[in-house]
Amino acid sequence: MKRSRQKLPVAFQGERGAFSQEAARRLVGPDVEVLPCLRFEDMFRRLEEGDVEGAIVPIENTLAGSVHENYDHLQNFNFPIVAETSVRIVHNLIAAPGVPFSKLKRVFSHPVALNQCLDFFLRNTGIEKTPFYDTAGSVKMIMEENLRDAGAIASSVAAEIYGARILRRSIEDDRQNYTRFFLLRTPEYAAKYPVAGNHTTWKTTLVFTLRNVPGTLFRALSAFALRDLNMAKIESRPLRGKPWEYLFYLDFIGNVDDPNVVNALDHLRELADYMRILGCYPKGA
Amino acid sequence: MKRSRQKLPVAFQGERGAFSQEAARRLVGPDVEVLPCLRFEDMFRRLEEGDVEGAIVPIENTLAGSVHENYDHLQNFNFPIVAETSVRIVHNLIAAPGVPFSKLKRVFSHPVALNQCLDFFLRNTGIEKTPFYDTAGSVKMIMEENLRDAGAIASSVAAEIYGARILRRSIEDDRQNYTRFFLLRTPEYAAKYPVAGNHTTWKTTLVFTLRNVPGTLFRALSAFALRDLNMAKIESRPLRGKPWEYLFYLDFIGNVDDPNVVNALDHLRELADYMRILGCYPKGA
Repeated sequence: MKRSRQKLPVAFQGERGAFSQEAARRLVGPDVEVLPCLRFEDMFRRLEEGDVEGAIVPIENTLAGSVHENYDHLQNFNFPIVAETSVRIVHNLIAAPGVPFSKLKRVFSHPVALNQCLDFFLRNTGIEKTPFYDTAGSVKMIMEENLRDAGAIASSVAAEIYGARILRRSIEDDRQNYTRFFLLRTPEYAAKYPVAGNHTTWKTTLVFTLRNVPGTLFRALSAFALRDLNMAKIESRPLRGKPWEYLFYLDFIGNVDDPNVVNALDHLRELADYMRILGCYPKGA
Repeated sequence: MKRSRQKLPVAFQGERGAFSQEAARRLVGPDVEVLPCLRFEDMFRRLEEGDVEGAIVPIENTLAGSVHENYDHLQNFNFPIVAETSVRIVHNLIAAPGVPFSKLKRVFSHPVALNQCLDFFLRNTGIEKTPFYDTAGSVKMIMEENLRDAGAIASSVAAEIYGARILRRSIEDDRQNYTRFFLLRTPEYAAKYPVAGNHTTWKTTLVFTLRNVPGTLFRALSAFALRDLNMAKIESRPLRGKPWEYLFYLDFIGNVDDPNVVNALDHLRELADYMRILGCYPKGA
């Protein structure tokens, strides 16, 4: 189902109103058209099939850690990261219009969201935590079923989209709860529509494997450290077919066109068995 | 419920017959008494409460990667790792006695196990994949319900325990499928019953945090690389309360009593904000 270039949506995982939709608004624009997908892998398939112009990929949360499945997809598919953003995860207690807080017996949400609001449930022992497959999907469901004794925990965007009301704002235990998202595009689209703006700080993400001999990771990191390039993150994933060996994903501050970075990458290529740049993009706020 | 020292079981997550039970047999002995737990955290709570003498903790799978939740528990609780082992994950197709392969319409198992047997389902399109909460639990269920058109995917130990029959052995797509397990003990128990045997190769696992300045991870790894100590694994997890900073977990080959290791650890302490040894144990096969 190829459509005209102008009208292509961006893919994200979850129901409309997911935190990924907020990321999509920031990364693409406030009136972005979105295509909700059931699974992370579906976003990558949609990109491959040309159904979407981009995908909004959650890669890391400051409480839950990396989204390892998406690291695997970054390696298994081949779409450049062109931008990043971080969204603060604010969990709101949401119910249908006219349903007061005092009537709530159950609150639906994704288990991770429920577990990030434990203080709320400790203070309100009459309300039962009820696991559901999606945060925004739980708002959709209580509205569709017109539940009068149930609430949902989700983003304010979800309340807005489904016409529900926010009863309590920001009921999460820990406010230091952020999710970092990548915008991926097809290589053709990324080349045709380069990132706009005058960015001073860039980040590069790459993946590599090393020979299984002592000291190789240390030497690989020396390619950056000896050139004063600042590493922001390292993540390891199992290397299929080679038990107890790893793929390493590295984020560092720098643009692939900087002479210093060119040298560092040449140095890393000498040491690595395999190396690929996954993207070079303006550092997000 | 304190019981006499001699009789204490070891905790593991899953139903009887889980791969963790095979790990328990190897790590503790063939006639080990086990206490099945619903969640990983329950094992650590049981250790804390003195209900068990040890816990069998899966930490890493060669296909799925690290069990990140257990890395977090290693840090949040304080029980030494005293041994490790790796179990090859062999998925068997299991049914009640007298149920032939030709009658199977559905096969139950944990979603991860089902996804590791995709070739089997592609070759047998008449059999439906049916997600269940546990591999061994799916064998227990088909036996209890006496299902005559359903199978389960689980370990051979599960078939043995529940009196079921193996219809097809080793139906997993990828034979390079291993899970590494730790044996954790209470500090008192670990001191009282040191690891037996004459082990030549030891591993040490530690956790540390670094100041958030450029090049610190490189310098931390230098403590090992400059002393020719071989790093086996590095894992990072988010540091709570400090968005985009990390806890690092490191495995290296060496015993904390080796003079070389003593120096490396002193060096790392200089560089780290925080450092703790999680265990020093004989390297598993």
